[in-house]
Amino acid sequence: MAIDLEHCKDLDAADPLAEFRDRFEAGEEGAIYLDANSLGPLPADAPARLEATVREAWGRGRSRSWANPRWIGAPARIGAKLARLIGAEDDEVIVGDGTSVNLFKLLMAALALQPEGRRVILSERDNFPSDLHIAQGIVALRGHRYELKMVEQGDDILAAINQEVSVVTLTHASFRTGACHDLKAITHRAHQAGALVVWDISHSAGATEVDLNGAGVDFAVGCGYKYLGGGPGAPAFAFVRRDLQATASNPLTGWMSHADTMSFETDYRPADGMRRFLCGSPEVLALTVLEAALDVWEGIDPSLAFEKNRALTGLFIDLVEQELSSFGFTIITPKETDRRGGQVTIAHERGAELSEALIKAGVLCSFRPPNAMRFGFQPFCLRFTDLWEAVGRLRGVVEKA
Amino acid sequence: MAIDLEHCKDLDAADPLAEFRDRFEAGEEGAIYLDANSLGPLPADAPARLEATVREAWGRGRSRSWANPRWIGAPARIGAKLARLIGAEDDEVIVGDGTSVNLFKLLMAALALQPEGRRVILSERDNFPSDLHIAQGIVALRGHRYELKMVEQGDDILAAINQEVSVVTLTHASFRTGACHDLKAITHRAHQAGALVVWDISHSAGATEVDLNGAGVDFAVGCGYKYLGGGPGAPAFAFVRRDLQATASNPLTGWMSHADTMSFETDYRPADGMRRFLCGSPEVLALTVLEAALDVWEGIDPSLAFEKNRALTGLFIDLVEQELSSFGFTIITPKETDRRGGQVTIAHERGAELSEALIKAGVLCSFRPPNAMRFGFQPFCLRFTDLWEAVGRLRGVVEKA
Repeated sequence: MAIDLEHCKDLDAADPLAEFRDRFEAGEEGAIYLDANSLGPLPADAPARLEATVREAWGRGRSRSWANPRWIGAPARIGAKLARLIGAEDDEVIVGDGTSVNLFKLLMAALALQPEGRRVILSERDNFPSDLHIAQGIVALRGHRYELKMVEQGDDILAAINQEVSVVTLTHASFRTGACHDLKAITHRAHQAGALVVWDISHSAGATEVDLNGAGVDFAVGCGYKYLGGGPGAPAFAFVRRDLQATASNPLTGWMSHADTMSFETDYRPADGMRRFLCGSPEVLALTVLEAALDVWEGIDPSLAFEKNRALTGLFIDLVEQELSSFGFTIITPKETDRRGGQVTIAHERGAELSEALIKAGVLCSFRPPNAMRFGFQPFCLRFTDLWEAVGRLRGVVEKA
Repeated sequence: MAIDLEHCKDLDAADPLAEFRDRFEAGEEGAIYLDANSLGPLPADAPARLEATVREAWGRGRSRSWANPRWIGAPARIGAKLARLIGAEDDEVIVGDGTSVNLFKLLMAALALQPEGRRVILSERDNFPSDLHIAQGIVALRGHRYELKMVEQGDDILAAINQEVSVVTLTHASFRTGACHDLKAITHRAHQAGALVVWDISHSAGATEVDLNGAGVDFAVGCGYKYLGGGPGAPAFAFVRRDLQATASNPLTGWMSHADTMSFETDYRPADGMRRFLCGSPEVLALTVLEAALDVWEGIDPSLAFEKNRALTGLFIDLVEQELSSFGFTIITPKETDRRGGQVTIAHERGAELSEALIKAGVLCSFRPPNAMRFGFQPFCLRFTDLWEAVGRLRGVVEKA
């Protein structure tokens, strides 16, 4: 039976998260934001919280506010709020620095825990380029003691994990296709082969179920400004499994990672716990916004959001198949629910041009070469009827193109 | 002749920067903020600019704003605005990441340019601890191929620079004493010995004359939230002398340092110029604030601010000598004008307790072990009469202590 607008309205009426729509700013009249994979929505109370931090804590409090745990304690406090969304314990996550800097820290930490005879850093060619670049930088930095081996698209990553591999580093949900790796199976296979894993969960955290501890993950990093909604350039996060925290070392040994920062000791001593993986001063203003975004999740069962996300991506796929079958689109995101992140990608040979026209028609998406139109779904903000409207506009665009 | 309040009023009346006081928020009624070395003042138009970025560019523009040069171009654009305050060319400075992360990048870059036979990283024991920790982390990371040699306080750094030294890394103005090293003499001596220099100008940038190119400096980093006023945890900056930019390499090879970020190439290729020293996505919200702070300097001769800073620190020293000579204070900041940064430090055996009491009396200062009371002077905001009042309050505090 065909999906119609009435069906979408019924889904909205039954949505247990419908009221959360008001926790975010609506944005432009008539715009439909399917770009949470690039930049999540603005939490409604973020501007006021930011203004209070700026005017009160900074403008009036000034240097006194550095002594306030609100500021210095922010990376750990916000890390704990994020932990429950990604299957981690409160003391296993810290926020600060960018994703690539954190990936550098944790890849270096993982390699340092491994015997030097293991020479391979294993990834895949279609991993997010910055992640590959960081790994390539480490290979150069370590005088080519390591080799970055990249599995080709479609090849079996499990089969490539062997005794030569020191660290497997992958992005959980592909930035291009939206397909999710099997976090648990790959981590398990890596461990069987004596390798460690460093996962980048930028494209799944806050959008879909990520059970880091359930999968036995060693290290993970992720972005704060996509589905998590921390705003443009938000601090990223780092996860280190609790039993590795005492032996893993952070190569970026800045003062905030010191055991006793305010003693101003000459000699470096790493802090216990996740503070060890910080480096410099907390990004107070940006952290204020990220915390506002994570507080939206307070008191709700995160799986409600992940279920809604799956329902949204599923409906979008169904609507594209129903409405656009004759226009040359290929859905390259897996149709199996548990293999999708928060994004759906449809390929079209004129994808660049169509994306641009669709954005002009008020449906925000993004394009990645060579042909991928990406649609990222923020579970709190979107209505099922928004997707009906968005696919209608896409049809209008492609009919005219 | 004794300094009196009238003299201070005369200085205020003759202050060419008096009108700039309104470009910043006043803070708490009656408070005197002598803490610009910890956290500079809030620029008056920063809240509105931040709100516009948050509500318009983020909340309404969303992912479209990533395509706007305002965001992606911010690190280079703001770097150029900062360049003229530190004796650099527009294309020699970039902002982003924290000071310690940038120090890691540039120390690694400097070491990589040098022959491996040079095994010494030269610094001083009283350098800012985070800077020493970063150097110690690099020594560990490079398998103790290098040695961090620290000159003791009072010893001659010039005499310690020899053919074994790969890189000299120092903070221009001491975080503890406020004393400035001779940037030019040390840099010159380093070059004579075949060493490179990496300066941390966190405690002098925006407060005092720093002529990086005049001194022939190779690399420099600094903090955005002290005298530069970028707000708590503001992005830091990195300077690389133009003729080193093509050969120096950044070990943190994130996508924003790639020659063609948006082509999403698998293989890393460093960007030309200072973009090579970026790593991850620009910290848009924090950069908005830092830019507002730097725009205060637009159209004025920076030396006016540096002259006022010298006048403020000089007056403060004179007032402490005049009013507090019998209370056991030692001024440990040099009295020679050109040897001071933006800060005056007075030592007192009960410095911790006195600092706390003085802050309660509304004069914001900061304490560093074992006995240093630090006073940092923001040239745009402070009046000479504020210092009269501050020293009077300090006298009141010490009389009661």
